Amino acid sequence: MAASAPQPDRKNPLALRQPGQPDTLVKVADSVEFGAAKVVLIGGPCAVENLTQILETARTVAANGGSMLRGGAWKPRTSPYDFQGLKEEGLDLLAAARKETGLPVVTEVLDPRDVATVGAVADMLQIGSRSIQNFPLLKEVGLSGKPVLLKRGMMTTVDEWLSSAEYILCEGNNQVVLCERGIRTFETSLRNTLDVGAVAVLKERTHLPVVVDPSHAAGDFRYVSALARAAVAAGADGLLVETHCRPDDALSDAGQSLTPHQFRELCDQCRAVAEAVGRSL
Amino acid sequence: MAASAPQPDRKNPLALRQPGQPDTLVKVADSVEFGAAKVVLIGGPCAVENLTQILETARTVAANGGSMLRGGAWKPRTSPYDFQGLKEEGLDLLAAARKETGLPVVTEVLDPRDVATVGAVADMLQIGSRSIQNFPLLKEVGLSGKPVLLKRGMMTTVDEWLSSAEYILCEGNNQVVLCERGIRTFETSLRNTLDVGAVAVLKERTHLPVVVDPSHAAGDFRYVSALARAAVAAGADGLLVETHCRPDDALSDAGQSLTPHQFRELCDQCRAVAEAVGRSL
Amino acid sequence: MAASAPQPDRKNPLALRQPGQPDTLVKVADSVEFGAAKVVLIGGPCAVENLTQILETARTVAANGGSMLRGGAWKPRTSPYDFQGLKEEGLDLLAAARKETGLPVVTEVLDPRDVATVGAVADMLQIGSRSIQNFPLLKEVGLSGKPVLLKRGMMTTVDEWLSSAEYILCEGNNQVVLCERGIRTFETSLRNTLDVGAVAVLKERTHLPVVVDPSHAAGDFRYVSALARAAVAAGADGLLVETHCRPDDALSDAGQSLTPHQFRELCDQCRAVAEAVGRSL
Amino acid sequence: MAASAPQPDRKNPLALRQPGQPDTLVKVADSVEFGAAKVVLIGGPCAVENLTQILETARTVAANGGSMLRGGAWKPRTSPYDFQGLKEEGLDLLAAARKETGLPVVTEVLDPRDVATVGAVADMLQIGSRSIQNFPLLKEVGLSGKPVLLKRGMMTTVDEWLSSAEYILCEGNNQVVLCERGIRTFETSLRNTLDVGAVAVLKERTHLPVVVDPSHAAGDFRYVSALARAAVAAGADGLLVETHCRPDDALSDAGQSLTPHQFRELCDQCRAVAEAVGRSL
Repeated sequence: MAASAPQPDRKNPLALRQPGQPDTLVKVADSVEFGAAKVVLIGGPCAVENLTQILETARTVAANGGSMLRGGAWKPRTSPYDFQGLKEEGLDLLAAARKETGLPVVTEVLDPRDVATVGAVADMLQIGSRSIQNFPLLKEVGLSGKPVLLKRGMMTTVDEWLSSAEYILCEGNNQVVLCERGIRTFETSLRNTLDVGAVAVLKERTHLPVVVDPSHAAGDFRYVSALARAAVAAGADGLLVETHCRPDDALSDAGQSLTPHQFRELCDQCRAVAEAVGRSL
Repeated sequence: MAASAPQPDRKNPLALRQPGQPDTLVKVADSVEFGAAKVVLIGGPCAVENLTQILETARTVAANGGSMLRGGAWKPRTSPYDFQGLKEEGLDLLAAARKETGLPVVTEVLDPRDVATVGAVADMLQIGSRSIQNFPLLKEVGLSGKPVLLKRGMMTTVDEWLSSAEYILCEGNNQVVLCERGIRTFETSLRNTLDVGAVAVLKERTHLPVVVDPSHAAGDFRYVSALARAAVAAGADGLLVETHCRPDDALSDAGQSLTPHQFRELCDQCRAVAEAVGRSL
Repeated sequence: MAASAPQPDRKNPLALRQPGQPDTLVKVADSVEFGAAKVVLIGGPCAVENLTQILETARTVAANGGSMLRGGAWKPRTSPYDFQGLKEEGLDLLAAARKETGLPVVTEVLDPRDVATVGAVADMLQIGSRSIQNFPLLKEVGLSGKPVLLKRGMMTTVDEWLSSAEYILCEGNNQVVLCERGIRTFETSLRNTLDVGAVAVLKERTHLPVVVDPSHAAGDFRYVSALARAAVAAGADGLLVETHCRPDDALSDAGQSLTPHQFRELCDQCRAVAEAVGRSL
Repeated sequence: MAASAPQPDRKNPLALRQPGQPDTLVKVADSVEFGAAKVVLIGGPCAVENLTQILETARTVAANGGSMLRGGAWKPRTSPYDFQGLKEEGLDLLAAARKETGLPVVTEVLDPRDVATVGAVADMLQIGSRSIQNFPLLKEVGLSGKPVLLKRGMMTTVDEWLSSAEYILCEGNNQVVLCERGIRTFETSLRNTLDVGAVAVLKERTHLPVVVDPSHAAGDFRYVSALARAAVAAGADGLLVETHCRPDDALSDAGQSLTPHQFRELCDQCRAVAEAVGRSL
């Protein structure tokens, strides 16, 4: 923000696209850029479980078209009795996988007290759906200056989502990527309802990149590719896809994780759609 | 239904795909087939308004890639004080447009007492969103034997939708096309929330063709093409798009109708996506 | 409507309360009045099943504080393979129950072609949730002049609901009672979510009486009384409660039907609440 | 938890009522008990604004039937440009109001880092709707041992809500009161949809007290009393009501705050309903 720029306020928030304002590019490590012609494919497991799992999965992501690795070290679980993640150990394993594959890593941070710890390892900080209005956390990731992947809440309107992004931007950090991941509706045939229209609306209303997580939207591996193709066709700048070297052994989200083979198929299908809309993948 | 076939029942409904059952093709007039490789593009105005409007619009549909004409003669309007459609006169105008352009026509029937009248002209009967559980009407269109375009209700689950289709099928009429048109959710940035995931779910669970109406989902011409591309990418067998020769003069749904130029753009974009997923348009 | 009254239109609909306009009283037979100080309790089975069932149930309704009998003769069922009601025979049984108990009867009409038949027997016509935007049907019940119980649809806004009432009112029939019965939301711990706030909103916005169906909202007999008490406390003018002489034998909605004993308890509890808010029951 | 008690787990969570388990009483300071026969009325402003405001409002709460004071010191606001609360100064003002009126105070804590600070002053910690799945925060308030008012999130199912309570209980703190405050649905005539049925469901499924916030559900002062009466009729153990000595001057939530006179009316009405259901207020 230039010194002479007017102060942002409710009527002139930083997240909204001003007339003629170009897309903001969000750069992660040296290799990834969100908001450019290339659709960014992020793959990886729901949770980091052990070294073998994360290394093996990271290799298949790298080998099959992915350009970033995802994996949860701190897991926000509905029940306190469910697996809560490997925490600091998970960060070490992500760093090991990055070292071997060269893939930058994105991982979730849940607690404002952990932002420095997670930010010391992760290339990009993920704010999960349940934290979309965790304002102290948003301020901390804003202050951290790290690129942020801001997932929409299950019942967050587009307006509220942009206001949450504003909490990060107004701390001087404009490296924010918005991630649609399905909303909660009356329909239960899938885990959530992918709001593909939000992608189109956001591409007009904000200059920030918009990606889609088809895995949490579908909640079922059989439908992930169809949602991913739809997202790219609608203009998404990237995809966040759960894949696991052995989905049947996954400690969480087993049903929605793709096998390496399925991940490659998704990648091939989405590349064809990306090219049909004038982009690459 | 062959004489020796088992009777359908709650556990074995006709609408569900049996293991190995191929897609049902729904044929309209001699020229259109839903459920085949070619994605069917239906275009036309919300309501039939006058001869000039319907002829001019039908010509642009035919010239820009559309293969069927839509247009409402009976309009279900939330308020009794809104334009209710030209009724029988609207049917005559649709017939005139068909005669000139060769496009088969689909139009809505609201009242079981009108099924014979509408069916005498229309090539395909549309059941609108508000009629999804109008069971007497469903039975009548089932008995009519005409191809049916069955729009999902704003609050209809996939299961309920298939049960409504069953009311038509169990009268011996399997020429039913399902049309996703957006559901009602908490999100109001668009008129409805397009449930693109329902397309993927339905293509697995039923043998019936599935099409998408991006116009009612978006409610805003700026987002219609993005939703149409997403629908085709997800596997839709067709599109139902509102277009009007002069949208600013439209008596209803002006804000979501495409100009002829925009309609052609949509057609071109969707053709590219269709080819990317191994189909044509 | 006096000859000199201005014509109603979108801006001045008949359903909205004009400044100072008193509550409209809806009278059914000679004995029931909706919108007065007395809260009207309507009881009866989901469906009319046979003479013994309807007579026995009607007697318990009359003996335990009910002043009207409900019971479905035509049943709108999600699946075509479910019990669809006894139809004309059901009307005869309702008439027999009325004759014995003196209770006026309300029953649903689904099809505009049946309005005359149902209206010849029923004291009040019910428009079910699935018919809230069945405009041909609304017009017919408007023309019939009979009192109408207009149930809200599962995903009908208050505005749309009042517009549907307007279809009846603008045919010259102002004997319309609105019935809240729960809306569809993401929450599934009960069958529907009772929108008790809609009662309060409607009592301000319209002059028409508002009643509540706690049985369909709850979908579970254990919670019906709590919802009924809440409805009366919020200002409802009546209650529509499913009760069955032997719920375990009911052909539909068995789980939400009250036994005669539970019906009496509900009545006693709601009477106490009614008196606490300055009314009777 | 007795030393010999079985360890709680997913199948046997602490929040669920075991057969025959009595209601848990939650005691705040020496004067307030949630879960007993007396319905607890909590009143106060949305935000603590200054000494005059909080003293004057606290006096009217005490004089008109309230037994606890609410008031926000840290305010979770959708936009970063809105008033964020007086923070520590707000706590001092709440303490001053408590000293003068004797009312125990409940106030929201947003950040796990602030739990000790807020807990040093507040008699009860409020977890706001947006924090319902802020698991690090839930653990901290669990460890604090302070009574907790756990508001339901806008999109939280009853099951998820109880799982969030479990995060507090499993830290050894069973002094948790659940607060229904309206959920997000398609209906927009009120700010949220009060799910009064959840009160009834929770009273059966959990031993924890359940209160209702009719102010945030309604979002409009005209409907707050109707919702409060409904809540008490359905079995709520308490009410959380926004009131302000001069609502027109309120810095936030002006439209839903009651005047002192309206607050007294609500209290009188709810007392009558409480007595009708065998309780007091």
